[in-house]
Amino acid sequence: MRQLMDIAADARRAKYAVARLGTNDKNRGLLAIADALLANTREIIDANRIDIENGRANGLVEGLIDRLMLDEKRIAGIAEGCRQVAALPDPIGEVLWMRKTPNGLNIGQKRVPMGVIGIIYEARPNVTVDAAALCFKAGSACILRGGKEAFHSSMCLTRLMRAALAGEGLPEGAINLVEDTSRDSATQMMKLNGWLDVLIPRGGAGLIQSVVRNATVPVIETGTGNCHVYVDASADLEMAQRILVNAKCQRPSVCNAAESLLVHKDAAARFLPMAAAGLAPSGVSIHGCPRTRELLGDAVFPATEEDYGREYLGYEISCKVVDSLDEAIAHINRYNTGHSECIVTRDYEASQRFLDEVDAAAVYVNASTRFTDGFEFGFGAEIGISTQKLHARGPMGLTALTTTKFIIYGNGQIR
Amino acid sequence: MRQLMDIAADARRAKYAVARLGTNDKNRGLLAIADALLANTREIIDANRIDIENGRANGLVEGLIDRLMLDEKRIAGIAEGCRQVAALPDPIGEVLWMRKTPNGLNIGQKRVPMGVIGIIYEARPNVTVDAAALCFKAGSACILRGGKEAFHSSMCLTRLMRAALAGEGLPEGAINLVEDTSRDSATQMMKLNGWLDVLIPRGGAGLIQSVVRNATVPVIETGTGNCHVYVDASADLEMAQRILVNAKCQRPSVCNAAESLLVHKDAAARFLPMAAAGLAPSGVSIHGCPRTRELLGDAVFPATEEDYGREYLGYEISCKVVDSLDEAIAHINRYNTGHSECIVTRDYEASQRFLDEVDAAAVYVNASTRFTDGFEFGFGAEIGISTQKLHARGPMGLTALTTTKFIIYGNGQIR
Repeated sequence: MRQLMDIAADARRAKYAVARLGTNDKNRGLLAIADALLANTREIIDANRIDIENGRANGLVEGLIDRLMLDEKRIAGIAEGCRQVAALPDPIGEVLWMRKTPNGLNIGQKRVPMGVIGIIYEARPNVTVDAAALCFKAGSACILRGGKEAFHSSMCLTRLMRAALAGEGLPEGAINLVEDTSRDSATQMMKLNGWLDVLIPRGGAGLIQSVVRNATVPVIETGTGNCHVYVDASADLEMAQRILVNAKCQRPSVCNAAESLLVHKDAAARFLPMAAAGLAPSGVSIHGCPRTRELLGDAVFPATEEDYGREYLGYEISCKVVDSLDEAIAHINRYNTGHSECIVTRDYEASQRFLDEVDAAAVYVNASTRFTDGFEFGFGAEIGISTQKLHARGPMGLTALTTTKFIIYGNGQIR
Repeated sequence: MRQLMDIAADARRAKYAVARLGTNDKNRGLLAIADALLANTREIIDANRIDIENGRANGLVEGLIDRLMLDEKRIAGIAEGCRQVAALPDPIGEVLWMRKTPNGLNIGQKRVPMGVIGIIYEARPNVTVDAAALCFKAGSACILRGGKEAFHSSMCLTRLMRAALAGEGLPEGAINLVEDTSRDSATQMMKLNGWLDVLIPRGGAGLIQSVVRNATVPVIETGTGNCHVYVDASADLEMAQRILVNAKCQRPSVCNAAESLLVHKDAAARFLPMAAAGLAPSGVSIHGCPRTRELLGDAVFPATEEDYGREYLGYEISCKVVDSLDEAIAHINRYNTGHSECIVTRDYEASQRFLDEVDAAAVYVNASTRFTDGFEFGFGAEIGISTQKLHARGPMGLTALTTTKFIIYGNGQIR
């Protein structure tokens, strides 16, 4: 078994080689990886079967087994993802600006690779390839640490990716999987200062909190979303119903799904029955404030303080009638996780104030929160959705995996 | 004494008010602060005298007493700094890009305030005002935690700044000083997740390492600099001498001063005596490799492994003769702190490779490392120099104190 410090040393050596690769070389590597995954589908499925059998033996619930499972179609999808990353523009080398100072220095800011990127994730073997492909295209080496449930799948995928790079004469040390899946190895990885330039956790709230609490390396916090839809007094109520139903029901298990509905008191009597009717076919339970229950009756559970802060990730929603736009904004800023928030309105000032005053990565007027996504935003791919304010906020595409340096051309200047 | 959690709650309340201020309001506040500092110079000097007397009684060395000391001229300088921040362009509100997606959403990325910014610093009372002014202009509330040696000065400055804002009808809660100067309050501040959006340590290596190790809030690591000057085989040696002497001697106590000299073997015999002659008038001690000592004699101390990693911050320098550009780049990437690095060369390829392959915030061809500074780079002001790769790298101006949000204008779009 490769020890973590050996892996970190390999990744550091490889980072210089990866940083020097041109775009064509990186794309050639990504296409070779895609081909290797397709050519070795059988081997991947065999490795995955061990994980599935272990998972069943350990009583993993079917939902997790499904996330873990790889079949021909899914492997083809993962390979296609690599081809898509190859097709993206290379973020490296762009000079964001350059200007001449009065003493004749030409100072510019250039986009350069991060170095070594760590990713800690759970039992989704596809992340092993997605993350490796994005880091490679961004010119960085990566250290991946997946959940132990997907260990055999991730090992097999990593072996194939490294062999594909080596076969093209490219640095296989660009892609590294932590082979020790104990809790210790995760904790050790969070403290690899000087070796890891950034650590990105991808997974549930527990994993993310553990990384935020324990890491001493720089972290990008991703993903929990307590997203709100606020229906203003002036809203087009049919539009509001469509947006609410889409934001809540189209895929309730994801972080950009709505978890809370706020309704202006002047729209409540007309809109709340429409909301209930729209959510009923999907069997959504409503946890409402007293005014909601007055209007919708006892089928609505009483909302607790806790409900307003919950990310249900399922067919439940909290609901509150508010007296004003101010109350709506204050409620959102108190309970949200800084992810995605929506106002439905026809009022100009309300739209501008909501955009300005709501503190979140993505703020919508008259559109579903479900659009917060790297593909939908036109970034072509996504490594996660940042809910912190440093470095990257919202969907993170390739540029979020890069940094910048200042380059200075002089001809002998001194101070 | 205001408790830290009360201060955090005040700052959170104030952040919404500060974020809503227009540029004219913020500038009015900054000019009022400048006026208040000038009008109350006597009071500031009196408060400062208590710190100076306590410092002397506690045996503080003269260098620290000097950093701590405020007089009329220094206070005028601090007030002038506020006026300069007022004169800077407002970073808030800029839309970095906006584009229309195929389904008709207008998606843009807008620069917005960070929220609450924490600054931990040492016994320099001027930082109290500098940091508060920059955070205020950037639309954020701040929580300042200065060294206990400067407590009375910082309290007085903070009181005057808050009163100046209140006098203009602006939110005084924008500026907060931690009144508890125990170690506990610093540690508690590092773990204010959910209250602090970013924490920036400004000071020596010990302070910065303590924050990096203990903080669970997002941190921007600033400032230590083990900076190199590499004199290539093809260098204009007189230019190299000028740059070396400037980088080492012009102000050796700062992070962008050179700490190490690398010389290509083909230039060593001619250049090392020039280097020694240039450094001699300032009394710089050289810690050299065996080849350096062969050329310069026993006046050069033998360089240890530790010397190559040291930030002397004084009249000392390490020196190594290297066989090639590759060795120079590898040496720098091994020992540097990611701050500022310089090549002196006439060779085109060497200049390009050095710019590309050296991993640092600022990489120079033929200019002194001393230019790594927010004012010199044209940012108008500086909150520090980031040596990490997330969010901000190199000198941090006002924009480094901001974040972005995505704003989305729709007309009913759903997924």
